[in-house]
Amino acid sequence: MRFLKLTLAYDGTRYVGWQVQPNGISVQQRLEEAWKAVTGEARRITASGRTDSGVHAEGQICSVRTVSKLDVHVLARALNANLPDDIAVVYCHEMSEDFHAIRDAIEKTYRYQIQSGPIRDVHGRHFWWYVPPSIDVGAMATAADYLIGEHDFASFQTTGSERKSTVRTITNLSVDSHDDQGYQRVCIEVTANGFLYNMVRCIAGTLAVVGKGREAPDWVRNVLNARCRSNAGPTAPPQGLFLQHVKYAAKFMPEST
Amino acid sequence: MRFLKLTLAYDGTRYVGWQVQPNGISVQQRLEEAWKAVTGEARRITASGRTDSGVHAEGQICSVRTVSKLDVHVLARALNANLPDDIAVVYCHEMSEDFHAIRDAIEKTYRYQIQSGPIRDVHGRHFWWYVPPSIDVGAMATAADYLIGEHDFASFQTTGSERKSTVRTITNLSVDSHDDQGYQRVCIEVTANGFLYNMVRCIAGTLAVVGKGREAPDWVRNVLNARCRSNAGPTAPPQGLFLQHVKYAAKFMPEST
Repeated sequence: MRFLKLTLAYDGTRYVGWQVQPNGISVQQRLEEAWKAVTGEARRITASGRTDSGVHAEGQICSVRTVSKLDVHVLARALNANLPDDIAVVYCHEMSEDFHAIRDAIEKTYRYQIQSGPIRDVHGRHFWWYVPPSIDVGAMATAADYLIGEHDFASFQTTGSERKSTVRTITNLSVDSHDDQGYQRVCIEVTANGFLYNMVRCIAGTLAVVGKGREAPDWVRNVLNARCRSNAGPTAPPQGLFLQHVKYAAKFMPEST
Repeated sequence: MRFLKLTLAYDGTRYVGWQVQPNGISVQQRLEEAWKAVTGEARRITASGRTDSGVHAEGQICSVRTVSKLDVHVLARALNANLPDDIAVVYCHEMSEDFHAIRDAIEKTYRYQIQSGPIRDVHGRHFWWYVPPSIDVGAMATAADYLIGEHDFASFQTTGSERKSTVRTITNLSVDSHDDQGYQRVCIEVTANGFLYNMVRCIAGTLAVVGKGREAPDWVRNVLNARCRSNAGPTAPPQGLFLQHVKYAAKFMPEST
C-alpha cells in the first residue's frame, strides 16, 4: 500500500463544496471519479477540510491510499487529464508512512479577498467580495490585532455548529491592500491551528463592518468577549474565500517537485 | 439632445457577444434594458466594436443620445444598479458635440492572455488560454515584429468575412510575460487603426505556434505574405481576448472623472 498526498487547486463556483452531497456535484466526487478512471480504484479521498459551496482552494490537501504503481508525476498528469478545467492536481507526493489529511494537519491558512472602490471588478466577481464604495484598511488591521492569539471564538462561527470547544489559536491575521487600476483590493490572511464553521467568513464580515466605518476597531474586542454570534458582523459571502495552505509535520512536507 | 460616451467593462463568458441576437443574451441587450429602466428611453446603444461570445472588455466605448437630464455620475450609478454583476459602466462622460462610438474611433487596443506552465490556473480559466506545458516568449516577440506596420492581413481573418480591404496598420504589438507563482502568464497587446474579423485571435493562435516551437519566428513573415487564412495558425479561443482601449480625437477624450 502506498500513501499519497495530493495538493489541489479548484474554483468552487460550480460546486456544492468539497464533500459529496446528494444535491449537486462536489469537488470530492469529481476527484474520486478521476481517480477511478486513472487507477481503476474506487476510493474515498479525504481532504484537510470541507470547503463550502463557492469557496475556492489553492492548496487543499488530500490523502489517498493506493496499490497503483504509477509514478507520482504520471499520476498527477493523468488525474488532470480526467478532471474538469476548474479542478487541478498541483502536486502529487509519496509519503513514506501513513498520512491522513485531517488527522496530521497542524495549521491552516485561509485568504479572504475583498474588492472595494466605486466600480465592481466584473472580471473578479467569482473571487472577490465587492464592498462599495471604499474601505478603511488601517482600521481593519487594528481591529484584526484583537483576534490574534488563543481565544474563545464562539462569536465567529455559524450558529448551530456542534464543536465541543470553541477555543482556537490564530497565529497570524493580516490585512493588506493595494490599488489595482482603480480597484481597491484587500486581502485578509488568517493562520490558525483550527477553524470553527464559517470562522474566516465571520471574521471577514466583522472586519468589513469596521472597514466601512460603522464600528470602531475596538468593537471587535467586545464582539470577541461576548462569545455570541449575534454580536459579530455578517458572514461574508463564500466567493472571497480561498483555502491557501495546510501545514503538516516536517516529515509530511516534502519540497515541491 | 445630449451626447454621452459610456466606458464599459464586462465579463463576456455568459453572453452571446456584444450584439443583440435571437439565440441568447447579449451585453447590448442588458445595457439597453438598464438604460430603459433608468431613463425610460428605448434606445439602440452603439459600441465601438462587436465583441464575440466569450470575449471580454475593460474599455468598450458606447455612444448614446438622450434627453434625460440626469447628472453623468448619477446616471452611471443608476445604470450599474440595474446591470448584472458581470457588466459595469466604468465612466459616463458628456460630449460637447455629436459623438459616435464607431465613426469617431481612431484606433483600438486589444490584449490576448495566454497561461502556460505544467498546471492550468483553475481560477483564471475564463480569462486565459491555457497552452501547456511551456511557451517561448522571446520567439513570439520576434515573430510579432513582422506584423507591425501597414500590411495586408488577409491571412489573419476568419474566412468568409466581407470587408473590402484587408490592409490595416498595427502601430504596436508587444508580447510580455511574467511568472506568477508557477503559472507563466503571457500578454499579447495589439494596437491598430482597425481590425479584421477575429484578427487578434488569429494573430494569437499564430504566435502560439511559434511559442510552442513548431515553427520558427520568420514563418510568420511567410504567413503574412501568403495573404491566405489557411497558412496561419489556428484561431485562439475567445476567453483570452480583452478589448482594452479605444482611442478617439482629443475632443472626445476627456479626463477620467
